[in-house]
Amino acid sequence: MSKKKDSLTNISELGEFGLIDRLTKNFKNRNKNTIMGIGDDAAVIDNLNSYTIITKDIFSEGVHFDITYSPLKHLGYKVVTANLSDIYAMNGNPTHIFAGIGVSNRYSLEALEEIYKGIELACEKYDIDLGGGDTVASKSGLFISITAIGTANPDQIVYRNGAKEHDLICVSGNLGGAYAGLLILEREKQTYKANPDMQPNLNDYSYVLERQLKPEAGKNIINLLKDLKIKPSAMIDISDGIASEIMHICKNSGCSAVIYEEKIPIEKMTSNVAHEFNIDPTTFALNGGEDYELLFTVNQADYEKIKTLEEISIIGHITHKSESKKLITVSGNVVELRAQGWDAFKK
Amino acid sequence: MSKKKDSLTNISELGEFGLIDRLTKNFKNRNKNTIMGIGDDAAVIDNLNSYTIITKDIFSEGVHFDITYSPLKHLGYKVVTANLSDIYAMNGNPTHIFAGIGVSNRYSLEALEEIYKGIELACEKYDIDLGGGDTVASKSGLFISITAIGTANPDQIVYRNGAKEHDLICVSGNLGGAYAGLLILEREKQTYKANPDMQPNLNDYSYVLERQLKPEAGKNIINLLKDLKIKPSAMIDISDGIASEIMHICKNSGCSAVIYEEKIPIEKMTSNVAHEFNIDPTTFALNGGEDYELLFTVNQADYEKIKTLEEISIIGHITHKSESKKLITVSGNVVELRAQGWDAFKK
Repeated sequence: MSKKKDSLTNISELGEFGLIDRLTKNFKNRNKNTIMGIGDDAAVIDNLNSYTIITKDIFSEGVHFDITYSPLKHLGYKVVTANLSDIYAMNGNPTHIFAGIGVSNRYSLEALEEIYKGIELACEKYDIDLGGGDTVASKSGLFISITAIGTANPDQIVYRNGAKEHDLICVSGNLGGAYAGLLILEREKQTYKANPDMQPNLNDYSYVLERQLKPEAGKNIINLLKDLKIKPSAMIDISDGIASEIMHICKNSGCSAVIYEEKIPIEKMTSNVAHEFNIDPTTFALNGGEDYELLFTVNQADYEKIKTLEEISIIGHITHKSESKKLITVSGNVVELRAQGWDAFKK
Repeated sequence: MSKKKDSLTNISELGEFGLIDRLTKNFKNRNKNTIMGIGDDAAVIDNLNSYTIITKDIFSEGVHFDITYSPLKHLGYKVVTANLSDIYAMNGNPTHIFAGIGVSNRYSLEALEEIYKGIELACEKYDIDLGGGDTVASKSGLFISITAIGTANPDQIVYRNGAKEHDLICVSGNLGGAYAGLLILEREKQTYKANPDMQPNLNDYSYVLERQLKPEAGKNIINLLKDLKIKPSAMIDISDGIASEIMHICKNSGCSAVIYEEKIPIEKMTSNVAHEFNIDPTTFALNGGEDYELLFTVNQADYEKIKTLEEISIIGHITHKSESKKLITVSGNVVELRAQGWDAFKK
């Protein structure tokens, strides 16, 4: 391979989604029970009475987490909730996870047990079973691969492709906190490296640190929508910032969108951190990763049910595909919405 | 963590199966549709009409494969067939795989495409769909995590725990070939490193090299048994050598076993390689890994149906749990069967 190196394509040129499209473009589905393959939060398999929903995510040391400030138990918890988030984003109910872990010799049994304690805590909280897994040696570093399995009623499942013009765009919780937490952790790590006697100052930032290190998945939101008899027209979990997620919904649904900056829910502490770093808080919400909230669209008929809910913010609406994707700023300017997102290969 | 390092447990002390037992001992199953969790080739979930079977395996560069002699397309093929093997070992029918790949920057897009070509070839041959996956950056090296999903009729599924006294112990195909191939590849790699002008001599070893680099899964055997209306009482796939797999069946079924060295199917080329390395060919079959054949037990009533089949060898029978596990050698000696197996953490 090394001879031809100059003519080969660097993976980072394509970006994460371009890469997946390129690699999987030749795959055909052969089983008629494949309802949804590649291209949504999770795959869907028909079991006659119900659909099985499957998703898989990998976390790789030095890319998705930094072991110097990620407590291993939190890490175990997070890799599970990040996967469950994809099942909830299909309006599904997760039932099982499978954990694959690769560890180098520098990890002790006790370290692995901490990861498993976090996995078990997440299983307990979300009422799911660990179905199995695989623990292997790795030549360097730690990686964790989780597969989550769930079920959904065929008439309740929600894809990315159902958004219609005039639908309301909603998000759960608040945004940008996980990215704020990451910036704090990275800053304190640098401070500590420069002067190991200096204790990191983390107490003032507990909310955003928890958003980064131990995020929750959207179980409560899914249950709330069910109780209110609201079925979203499209849904996706927010792992790369809402700009990227809105692009996905628009692409899959064949539509466009407009969102209002003033409607984007951002916690006070998240804003404070953004100002400490001289960054616009809206940028955190648009392009920060790992909030694991849900972004979904609903018919305008559901407006009355949604509008008073504390947990949900209406941030915009779906427009015709001939429109451009727009952000209306607080000052009333119209800017084009762009997805910078997270791209691990570009970091 | 580094302060306490001396008091921590090295993972290699426990071995692979001890490690999994230790890490998962606190996990409880919460969903009543969990038919089989941890502890067999795959997990089983009840969907009312059918069972969903799920398995997951990880392959890690430098541990499970060596990129200097594993063609990437073969590698993609092998990681799929190794997982399908676990579904067949439940007497199930695989339908979907999910592929997670971590790659460092030294891999090009074209390299990743080669892996995916192998994955697609396996999907085509075994008539399964790629349901999705995740491709992430890795700080060093390549790892591939595959989740395979299948189905089985509840009354046709076969676990490791059903072997009964007097049942016949059967294996498909022939054994030790994959390990023979590995030894050849390792030897030629060393020769090449010592003298890069020397071309590796691989032509004489094509059968065992294919066993190592591009193994097949037990689809044909499962179909053959179905055609003959034989339902094994217990079954496992042979990924760590038959000594280890027999131990698993005996442990799960609460029984013991005796096998006859002369009955163990070993190809001529595998024996030749063993002799080149001054190793007993039986050792290859007992403790060599990655043959991905099936080891299963059947009731003696099925003897007439099984005995003439070219694809299947009867190598012994199940005994009472009070007996020791024995190998009767060609010369008539009785030796205790021990599982050395493969243990990636000890390598």
